[in-house]
Amino acid sequence: MAELGSPKFLRRLEAPGVDQGRAITFDRPLVLDSGRELAPLTIAYMTYGALNAAKSNVVLVCHALSLDQFVAGRHPVTGKPGWWETMVGPGKPIDTDRFFVICANVIGGCMGTTGPAETDPATGNPYGLTFPVVTIRDMVRAQAMLLDALGIQEILCVTGGSMGGMQVLQWAASYPERVICALPIATAARHSAQNIAFHEVGRQAIMADPDWRSGNYQLEGTQPSKGLAVARMAAHITYLSEAALQRKFGRSLQNRNGLSFAFGPDFQIESYLHHQGMTFVDRFDANSYLYITRAMDYFDLAADYGGVLAEAFLGTKTRFGIVSFTSDWLFPTSENKRIAHALNAAAANVSFVEIETDRGHDAFLLDEPELFAAVRGFLNSAAASRGVK
Amino acid sequence: MAELGSPKFLRRLEAPGVDQGRAITFDRPLVLDSGRELAPLTIAYMTYGALNAAKSNVVLVCHALSLDQFVAGRHPVTGKPGWWETMVGPGKPIDTDRFFVICANVIGGCMGTTGPAETDPATGNPYGLTFPVVTIRDMVRAQAMLLDALGIQEILCVTGGSMGGMQVLQWAASYPERVICALPIATAARHSAQNIAFHEVGRQAIMADPDWRSGNYQLEGTQPSKGLAVARMAAHITYLSEAALQRKFGRSLQNRNGLSFAFGPDFQIESYLHHQGMTFVDRFDANSYLYITRAMDYFDLAADYGGVLAEAFLGTKTRFGIVSFTSDWLFPTSENKRIAHALNAAAANVSFVEIETDRGHDAFLLDEPELFAAVRGFLNSAAASRGVK
Repeated sequence: MAELGSPKFLRRLEAPGVDQGRAITFDRPLVLDSGRELAPLTIAYMTYGALNAAKSNVVLVCHALSLDQFVAGRHPVTGKPGWWETMVGPGKPIDTDRFFVICANVIGGCMGTTGPAETDPATGNPYGLTFPVVTIRDMVRAQAMLLDALGIQEILCVTGGSMGGMQVLQWAASYPERVICALPIATAARHSAQNIAFHEVGRQAIMADPDWRSGNYQLEGTQPSKGLAVARMAAHITYLSEAALQRKFGRSLQNRNGLSFAFGPDFQIESYLHHQGMTFVDRFDANSYLYITRAMDYFDLAADYGGVLAEAFLGTKTRFGIVSFTSDWLFPTSENKRIAHALNAAAANVSFVEIETDRGHDAFLLDEPELFAAVRGFLNSAAASRGVK
Repeated sequence: MAELGSPKFLRRLEAPGVDQGRAITFDRPLVLDSGRELAPLTIAYMTYGALNAAKSNVVLVCHALSLDQFVAGRHPVTGKPGWWETMVGPGKPIDTDRFFVICANVIGGCMGTTGPAETDPATGNPYGLTFPVVTIRDMVRAQAMLLDALGIQEILCVTGGSMGGMQVLQWAASYPERVICALPIATAARHSAQNIAFHEVGRQAIMADPDWRSGNYQLEGTQPSKGLAVARMAAHITYLSEAALQRKFGRSLQNRNGLSFAFGPDFQIESYLHHQGMTFVDRFDANSYLYITRAMDYFDLAADYGGVLAEAFLGTKTRFGIVSFTSDWLFPTSENKRIAHALNAAAANVSFVEIETDRGHDAFLLDEPELFAAVRGFLNSAAASRGVK
C-alpha cells in the first residue's frame, strides 16, 4: 500500500467519515499500447461492500472522463456525494449489501492514480507532457493488475457509462474469461468524428491558455484555469440535450431588470455554464483532461480486430446488457445498437434497452428509474446464475 | 459616399475585377434598442444586377454571423468566391439578370460597416468594447436607412439563412408594408438555450485570451487569435451534422503511419478544425464576433409582441417561404415550423419546405438543388405577382 498522491491543488478533506480510498503501487512496468512503459504505477481505488468468501460478488465500476473512484459516499476533494450515489449503496441497484464494488481512478487521471500531475520519480518533477499517451486498453490493463493484486480473478459484472462503457467493452474483449456479465451504458465501440472534434476544441482551449506553459504549469506555479473552464463548458453542452436545456433554462434571464446590453451573463444558461467551468478547475487537472480525452478519441475496438467489431467478442460467454438514452446525442442509440448488432453477430448473449428521457447523455448519472430497474434486473440475473445471494 | 473602412488587419485585394463594394455614411444618429445612439454610421454594401425603372426588382440578402456583403464575385479580403456564389448571379436562382440584389454588412460587423473595430470619431481610437451592444432589429433598422438613402421603398424579396433569416423575420415584422415576400432559411424566431450556450463558450474563449486585452487589442497591437480560433472551431462543429462529419472524416488519420501517441492532429477532423480556426482569424474581428453572437442571443421576436409570435405578423400581406434542413441541429426544423405555425395563426400566406440532406446547418451555403429550386420558384412567383420580368 502506498501513500495517496494527488496534484497539490486538490486539497483533500480530512474530516471523519470521509474515506480517502486506497492505493497500490506496482514496481513492475505496465507496457502501454504506445510501446512505452509506465513504472512505478500507483492505482488509487475505492471499494464498497464486502468481498464474499468465494470472491464471486465483484462489481467493477469504470468511471467516465471527468469522474473518479469516488462512486458513493462523501468525495474527499469536493465534499459532495459520489457520482453514482443513486446507483451504488445498501439496497440500491448495485447493492453493496450483496456486492463488492471496486472503482479505480484511471491511469492518466488526477485522483491518485499515476497521471501527468503526479511526480515522475526519474526526474522528481511532475510528468506533465512527458507522461505517455494512454489508451482505454491501457486503463483496463491497469485495472486487471489491480484485481490480480487483490486476488480477484472473476468479475460478476463490469459496468460504467460513457468512457466507463468503453472500458467495459474493452474488459469483455480483452479478458472474456474473467467477465461474467458486462453492462456498458451510453457508450460506443469507437469515438465518432463529432466527438473527436468536441474533444479537440477542449484541448485547444487548454493549450491556448498561456498559463498552460506547454504542460509545465505545475513547475511554473501557474494554472490554465481559463482554458480548462472553456473546455469544460463546451463539453458540458454535449452532455445535455437541447430539450433539457430549453426546459431547464430556455431564455430565462439572470436579472429581472432585463437585458444588460453588455457581455456579462444575461441568461441563466450562461451563469450555469460559468459555474460548471469554474467548479471543474477546482477538482480536475488540465493535463489529465488532455490525456483522458485523447484516450477516448483513440478508442476504436474494432480496429484491433481487423475492423470487424463482432470479432472482438467471438466465442464469448459473457452476458451483455446495453443501455442507451433516447436524447443522448453524444453517444446516441445508434452507436449503442452497433455494439448490440456486433454481439448478435458474434452469437453473444445480449439484451438491449433504450430508455426514453430528455436528459441527454448525463441521464446515466441521474435519477432514472428505468435505468435503475435495468441495472438491478441485470445484476440479479447475473448473481442468480453464479449463486451469489 | 464614404471611403471604405475596415480593420487594419484585413488587407484588401486591389486586383482588377475585385469589387470593393460601396459605403454610405449617415451623420444623423441611429437610435438603438439599448437606448444608445450610433453616429456617424457607415454602412458598407454590395449590389449585383441593375435596379429596374419601377424599383420593383430588389432582392435584399441578409448575411449570417461570420459572413458579409460579398455574396458573389471575388471576395476582396480572402480572394475566394462570395458566400452565396451558387445562389446569386446571372441565370442563378437569385438571377442578377432580373433582380437587383443588395447585401449590407451588419452593424457590429467588420467588413466596412461601423463596428467595434472601426474608429470612434469621438476618441480617434477603435471602439472596442465601447461600441454599443446591437440587436437584430438594430441591424435591420440600419438596412432600412440604407434602402431609404438609395431611394428604394419596396423589397420584392428579403432572404438569408441563419442570422440572415432572423433579419428576414425582423424585416417582415418591422416593415411589413415594404416587404412583398420574405424567405427565411434555416433560422429561428428566438435563439435557443443550447445556441446561447455555444455562443457563450465562444465568447469566453475569446475573452480568456490574454491578447484580447479587455477588447483593446487593436490599440495594444495584439490579436486574440487563439481565442477566436477556438470559438470558431466550437461553432463550426454546430454547422455540420454528425452524419456529415462521419461521412467526410470518420476516424481517418492524417498520417498513414498510424496514431502518434501525442497531441498533434492525428485525425483528419482535427486538422480540418484547425484550418477552420486559423483561416477565420485572418478575416474576422474578435470583438465583432462578441457583438454579433450577442445580437443573435438577444433575438426573440415574440418578446416584442407580448410573447406571442403570431402577433408579430398580424395583418401582414407579405408572402412567406420557410426552408429548413432535416439534419440541421442548430436551427432545427422544429424552430422553423414554429415560425410557420405562428404565420398560420396570423392568417399569413406561408409555404414551408423541409429539405432532406445530411449536411447540417451549412446546407444553406452549399450546392443543394432542392434549395435552389425552392428559392427560384418562390422568387418567380413573387416577381410574377409584381409584374417583374
